Amino acid sequence: MTAGGETAEDRVKAFTEFRQRMNERILGEDNQVIRRFFSLDTQTYRAGALDVKTKELLGLVASMVLRCDDCIAYHVGQCREAGVNRDEFFEAFSVALVVGGSIVIPHLRRAVDFLDRLESAAEPAPAAHSHDAA
Amino acid sequence: MTAGGETAEDRVKAFTEFRQRMNERILGEDNQVIRRFFSLDTQTYRAGALDVKTKELLGLVASMVLRCDDCIAYHVGQCREAGVNRDEFFEAFSVALVVGGSIVIPHLRRAVDFLDRLESAAEPAPAAHSHDAA
Amino acid sequence: MTAGGETAEDRVKAFTEFRQRMNERILGEDNQVIRRFFSLDTQTYRAGALDVKTKELLGLVASMVLRCDDCIAYHVGQCREAGVNRDEFFEAFSVALVVGGSIVIPHLRRAVDFLDRLESAAEPAPAAHSHDAA
Amino acid sequence: MTAGGETAEDRVKAFTEFRQRMNERILGEDNQVIRRFFSLDTQTYRAGALDVKTKELLGLVASMVLRCDDCIAYHVGQCREAGVNRDEFFEAFSVALVVGGSIVIPHLRRAVDFLDRLESAAEPAPAAHSHDAA
Amino acid sequence: MTAGGETAEDRVKAFTEFRQRMNERILGEDNQVIRRFFSLDTQTYRAGALDVKTKELLGLVASMVLRCDDCIAYHVGQCREAGVNRDEFFEAFSVALVVGGSIVIPHLRRAVDFLDRLESAAEPAPAAHSHDAA
Amino acid sequence: MTAGGETAEDRVKAFTEFRQRMNERILGEDNQVIRRFFSLDTQTYRAGALDVKTKELLGLVASMVLRCDDCIAYHVGQCREAGVNRDEFFEAFSVALVVGGSIVIPHLRRAVDFLDRLESAAEPAPAAHSHDAA
Repeated sequence: MTAGGETAEDRVKAFTEFRQRMNERILGEDNQVIRRFFSLDTQTYRAGALDVKTKELLGLVASMVLRCDDCIAYHVGQCREAGVNRDEFFEAFSVALVVGGSIVIPHLRRAVDFLDRLESAAEPAPAAHSHDAA
Repeated sequence: MTAGGETAEDRVKAFTEFRQRMNERILGEDNQVIRRFFSLDTQTYRAGALDVKTKELLGLVASMVLRCDDCIAYHVGQCREAGVNRDEFFEAFSVALVVGGSIVIPHLRRAVDFLDRLESAAEPAPAAHSHDAA
Repeated sequence: MTAGGETAEDRVKAFTEFRQRMNERILGEDNQVIRRFFSLDTQTYRAGALDVKTKELLGLVASMVLRCDDCIAYHVGQCREAGVNRDEFFEAFSVALVVGGSIVIPHLRRAVDFLDRLESAAEPAPAAHSHDAA
Repeated sequence: MTAGGETAEDRVKAFTEFRQRMNERILGEDNQVIRRFFSLDTQTYRAGALDVKTKELLGLVASMVLRCDDCIAYHVGQCREAGVNRDEFFEAFSVALVVGGSIVIPHLRRAVDFLDRLESAAEPAPAAHSHDAA
Repeated sequence: MTAGGETAEDRVKAFTEFRQRMNERILGEDNQVIRRFFSLDTQTYRAGALDVKTKELLGLVASMVLRCDDCIAYHVGQCREAGVNRDEFFEAFSVALVVGGSIVIPHLRRAVDFLDRLESAAEPAPAAHSHDAA
Repeated sequence: MTAGGETAEDRVKAFTEFRQRMNERILGEDNQVIRRFFSLDTQTYRAGALDVKTKELLGLVASMVLRCDDCIAYHVGQCREAGVNRDEFFEAFSVALVVGGSIVIPHLRRAVDFLDRLESAAEPAPAAHSHDAA
């Protein structure tokens, strides 16, 4: 694996680890409102009248127009797992850009960078796995 | 038709008329950037990798978290034409509410009120049409 | 009671009625995420480590810097019931104004107008109560 | 004068009167932070390294991207007094639209409507003045 | 002291130093509006009808819903000096979370991380002081 | 050149390189809405009824009140090329600060830091050029 690939994997990993560590810290506190909010947040994206893919796209575009990089990164990951393809990502990005304006552009850059990292981190994975299997 | 029905129809009509009159006024000005923006805005919601219904839902949720009542009313109307049903509307609303927080609630109230008005304005229409057909 | 007094009472009443009617409409829908959010919102302002008065002041200032008139009106009412006096209101307003900037000023005007209306609507109350007591 | 002309004049007047009445009410309170903020706000737009016209245009565009109708109306009026012409207004609007996105459009409509009202309220003025002079 | 403790102390220190250095740079410019704003900002949090602790909590929650990490870090520090305890912090956080929505969560994570760092930087301090005294 | 000068040059360079690389990546995708938006964004700041300097100042203040560091850095650079001097920068900053409130302060610090870096990166440039010419 190239150094670039490792870096991509590392950055995604660092983001995920900080996110997970602090969530545990927050949920470890004795504050029921915050705990219930976190639980409600998870429930929101479950399949219902709308499927998971549509809901994650809604979460992504909401995060982009509100310009929250961590939320964007999170929903880019969730959308990808829900099967959003590159053309669909860019159409969702285009809605966020037109609704939110040029102020969204720096977040669009980082969203695309994060998506690229996810893809470059993911692509070597099958090879690595078959290597493991070997 | 009841007075309540007329009021609902009237409010939707007043909103639509002001919107249309000012859009014409703005596009009548000799400013190419604004004209191109309006044209781009229309292009954004055309079917592509994502269908019109999904894109309008994205526009609706983006408008709700940015808390713009006129944008919400517009996208509620567009979503309805694209076939979004009441359960789907409320799931989209729930994403906007959880992402954007309680500050979204007053806009949620007005979104539901506008949706109710659209439905009560629309419901007499079939009767009117069958009357016309008579 | 003067016509001005009636108007103040009416406006506060119209706001409260629309709020209540739409809340019932929203909670009547079969959407558990939204219902749980509304319940969580109520729980948030209950006395705990911080008392109700402090929490309502936090809700008020958050609403002012996010510039949501209905939320501001609601928390002005709640703060008043929790015993916030006029000097305390204006100090909370001053924090919102300095954090949020001059863009908060139109909302400050409406907050003060709403507080004035609440007070002028409330003032006849003791008379009414002594009448009841009679 | 037509009924339309009177309405335009009336709406501008109603906005100005509420603004002035509430400002007096706010400055009448014994809160030095708020008073100093209002005084600082006035000082901000005085001529310095940048002239009044440029500063008012900055205030206008800031108000548009933050989507505050009253602030927009106020700065439209100030810009007009500082000599901003219609083409300049629309170029400033175009910057706000592109930076802030389609979410700015409803505020753009009301900004143009307010500018139209100011102009239609102002146009009869010379006639009125020559009448006064008669 | 562990490496982790040093890092926590270092990050808090780096934040404080950049803040202080740039404030001096800004106040060194000949711009009276900015200078007066900085002075007004300081005045806002002085004890008055509301005590310092309440005002700092208001500043903290306002900063959280507006999602400004540096402002949050600053007010977390000020609140801590004003005697806000951990349960009170989390109740203030819960108000910000419910008002501002899930978009606040990444800032909540960093707020808790900063609070942890402040505490871990502060705890060795008595030891360090007794060492100095030795 | 001092190490500090090199660092300043490096940071400006890193920002510019990421910006340029990701813009190419984004424009390389087959999404016409996004491409047209980027083209429209460029067109917005061309001289028209308002000159480039005024338009860039409008873009800068809009970016500051919306609190987008990358947009601020970009417009600080563009303003500087359009001839905005230090006093004019600080007056534009003061408008953004008063309109947007203390929440703008951390972005003001970074704007001033970026301006300082641009100036310290630029100052050695003539020497470097005369060296090249040698």
